[in-house]
Amino acid sequence: MSRALENIRVVDLSHVLAAPTCTMFLADLGAEVIHVEPLHGDDAREFGPFAGSGGKNNSGYFISLNRNKKSLALDLKQEKGRKILTDLIKISDVVVENFRPTTMRKLGFGWEELQRINPKVIYASISGFGQDSLPGYDARPSYDMVAQGYSGLMSITGPEGGPPCRVGSSVGDIFAGHQATIAIMAALMHREKTGRGQHFDGAMIDGLFTVLENAVVRYTISGEVPGPLGSAHPSIVPFQSFPTKDDSHLIIALGNDNLWKSFCKLIGREDLGDHPKFATNPLRTKHRKGLEQILIPEFKKKTRKEWLDLLGKAGLPHSPANNIKEICEDPHIAYRKMLVEVDQPRVGKMRIVGSPIRLSETPGEVYAPAPLLGEHSEQVLKDILGYTKAEIELLKTENVINREV
Amino acid sequence: MSRALENIRVVDLSHVLAAPTCTMFLADLGAEVIHVEPLHGDDAREFGPFAGSGGKNNSGYFISLNRNKKSLALDLKQEKGRKILTDLIKISDVVVENFRPTTMRKLGFGWEELQRINPKVIYASISGFGQDSLPGYDARPSYDMVAQGYSGLMSITGPEGGPPCRVGSSVGDIFAGHQATIAIMAALMHREKTGRGQHFDGAMIDGLFTVLENAVVRYTISGEVPGPLGSAHPSIVPFQSFPTKDDSHLIIALGNDNLWKSFCKLIGREDLGDHPKFATNPLRTKHRKGLEQILIPEFKKKTRKEWLDLLGKAGLPHSPANNIKEICEDPHIAYRKMLVEVDQPRVGKMRIVGSPIRLSETPGEVYAPAPLLGEHSEQVLKDILGYTKAEIELLKTENVINREV
Repeated sequence: MSRALENIRVVDLSHVLAAPTCTMFLADLGAEVIHVEPLHGDDAREFGPFAGSGGKNNSGYFISLNRNKKSLALDLKQEKGRKILTDLIKISDVVVENFRPTTMRKLGFGWEELQRINPKVIYASISGFGQDSLPGYDARPSYDMVAQGYSGLMSITGPEGGPPCRVGSSVGDIFAGHQATIAIMAALMHREKTGRGQHFDGAMIDGLFTVLENAVVRYTISGEVPGPLGSAHPSIVPFQSFPTKDDSHLIIALGNDNLWKSFCKLIGREDLGDHPKFATNPLRTKHRKGLEQILIPEFKKKTRKEWLDLLGKAGLPHSPANNIKEICEDPHIAYRKMLVEVDQPRVGKMRIVGSPIRLSETPGEVYAPAPLLGEHSEQVLKDILGYTKAEIELLKTENVINREV
Repeated sequence: MSRALENIRVVDLSHVLAAPTCTMFLADLGAEVIHVEPLHGDDAREFGPFAGSGGKNNSGYFISLNRNKKSLALDLKQEKGRKILTDLIKISDVVVENFRPTTMRKLGFGWEELQRINPKVIYASISGFGQDSLPGYDARPSYDMVAQGYSGLMSITGPEGGPPCRVGSSVGDIFAGHQATIAIMAALMHREKTGRGQHFDGAMIDGLFTVLENAVVRYTISGEVPGPLGSAHPSIVPFQSFPTKDDSHLIIALGNDNLWKSFCKLIGREDLGDHPKFATNPLRTKHRKGLEQILIPEFKKKTRKEWLDLLGKAGLPHSPANNIKEICEDPHIAYRKMLVEVDQPRVGKMRIVGSPIRLSETPGEVYAPAPLLGEHSEQVLKDILGYTKAEIELLKTENVINREV
C-alpha cells in the first residue's frame, strides 16, 4: 500500500509529548521519521507504565508515541554529533523539535542556521509560549500543566463552583502536536509551489486558547467570565451525566426541544416536556439547577444497563460514562482498529492506540514497533549518510553514538 | 501574501462545530471555503452569545468559527438545489460534512456518488462513531458530550473520587476537526502523485480515544483503571494547582527532582527536598496525598501575585490558573495575535480567536469576517458556476436560494 507521506523525511528532535505527537501522525502516514535522541534517550523512555522488565526500551508511554519511527542516538554536545545532524538536515524535508526556544540556537540549529543548511527545509518548533514572544516569555519553562492553567482551560473544567481541574490527559501538548502537523503539511504544500521551506512557531498556550470554543466570545461580547460546570454544558440542557441506580453514570445529550419532549414522554413525565420553565432550551438553561433536582431522582430509578437499553431503543442521544477499561474492551473500538496489537522487541505483543486518520487509500497505520534506543543509528549513518564501517566504529569509540542497542 | 491553500476549493456542508473547525483551519490557510447552509442557516447561527441585536447573522459562536468563509444558502431538498451542489462538487477539491452517516447517502451524495461526480474530490466526513461501524453504531446520534463520555475522557477528568467531569470546551468535536484537517491535507498531497481523491471516515470517538495519552497503556500493560485526579498529574508530583492566600489558584509544575529541590530551597523547606518520602518523583507520586497536606499550608502563606513574582524570578515552572477574562486580556496573547479584531457586518468590530498556525511565510490568518446567511449565493452561482441573472432570479422565486441576505 502506498502512504501519503512516503517521500518525506523528518528529523525528529522531540521529547516526551507535544512534538512526538506531531511526528507520530507524520510517521503513521508514512513519513520516514528519524527520532534523534540524546545518548541517554528521550525522557519519555523513563515514563511508566513499563512493560516486562522495565528499562529504557520498555516504556509503554514511549512505545505508544514512537511506533513507526527510527531511533538515532547522538551526542549533540560533540562537534561530530552536530556534523551528523547537519548532514541529515541537508537531505531531509522537515525538522521538528520541542526544546525551550533558546536550545536550538545554542546548539547552532536556529532557524537562520537551518535555512543556510537547507533552504528547502520546514522547521516546526513547539514551546510553551512560542519563540516570537514578549521579552522573557520565551525563556519561561512550560509543561502541559502550565499551558492548561495559563490558557484558561482549567478555569472552565471541573465541578461547578469548585477549584480548577486539569483535563485528564495532556491536551496542551496534544493539541499543539496536532496543530504542528497541520502547519507542516501546509508548508509542504506551499513548498511544492515555491521550493522554499518555512518556520512554524507553535505555542502550547496558543493551541489551547484556540480550543476554548464559545468561552472567548462569551467574554469578548458580553463580559461574562465562564466558570466550570461539572459535567454540564453552558448552553444546552439537559446535556450532562447523571448517577444511576447502580451508582454508575449515564450521559444524556438532548440537543434540541424535540429530543427533550421525546425523552419526557419515554420516562412518563410529559408534564416536564411542556412545562413553562422547561419547554425550550433557553428556559431549561435558565432553570438548569431546578431541572437537575427533578431529573436526579428520575435517573436513580434505573441501572445504567437499563437506561442504555431504553435510550438506545428510543434513539435518544446518550452514552455510558465509560471508564478506561470499558473503552479499551469496547467492541466498536476494536472494530475501528483504534486499539491495535504491536509486536514490540524486548516486550512482545502489546496493545497501543491506533490512528484516527482513517483514509480510504492512505490511512494512518501502526506498521512498525517503536525503536529501541539507538536501534537505527548505524543504518542511518551507513545507508542514508554513507558512512563507512570504520567511521561508524570510530564514532562509537568516541561516544558520539551508542556502542550497543 | 500568498497562502498555502490558495488554489484549493472546499464545499463545506458542515454545521455547528466538528467539521466547521476543520474548514476554519482550511480557510485560515487560504482555501476558498464555500459553506453550503440550509435556507434557515447552520444551527450554530442560533447559538449564543449574540452580538448587537441578535439574530442569525449575529451569533458570536458562528462568527468565530466561520470567519474567512463564504455562505451559499441552498435548499438541498429540491432537485435544483442538488444540481447546484453537484456542479459545485465537480469543480471543487474537497467536500467536508458532519451529518449523521446516512444523511449524505440519502441526499445522493454518498462516497460512491461523489466519486462519480468528481473522481479527484477528497471527501471528509465526521460523525460520532464513524461511517464504517458495527451494525447500528453509524445511526447512533452523537454530540460532543456523547464522545467525551463514551471515549473514557470524562472518567479521568474531575475531582479525585468524584463524578466524571466534562472538559469545559467541546474537545470531542474540536479534536475530530483537527484530525480531519490532517487527513484532508494528507489526501491532497497523495492526490498530487496519483490524481485520485479518497474518503476520510472520521469519528469523534476515535479522535478522543487517540488523546487519552498514557491512560490506555496503563490499562493494557498493567490492568490499572485510571480515574480522575482533580488538578494533579498521575505520575509527576507536584504538578497541580494549589489555593493561595487570596483564594486564587496557582499552578506548580515541578517536572524533575532538581526543580523540586530548588523549590524546597526557595520556600525554606530544604527538609522536604531530601526527605525519604519525597526526594524522588516516584516517591512523591507514592506519597502525593501526604505531600499535598504539607504543601497546602505553604501555598496559603502568599498571594497569587507574590507567588508569581517569586517563582518567576526563580525560573521554576508555574502559572496562574487564569480565568477567561484574564487570558483574553493577557499581553502575551495580544502579542501573539491570538485574539484579533474582525470588522463584522451588522455587528461592527469584535474580538475573536486568531490562528495558532503561525507559519513564517503562509500563516493562518483572519482576513475576512464571517458570512451573512447566503451572502455569497449569487456570487458563487454567477462567478463560479456561470448562472445568468435570469436563472438566479428564477432560483430565488422557487426558493432554491434565499431572496435576500
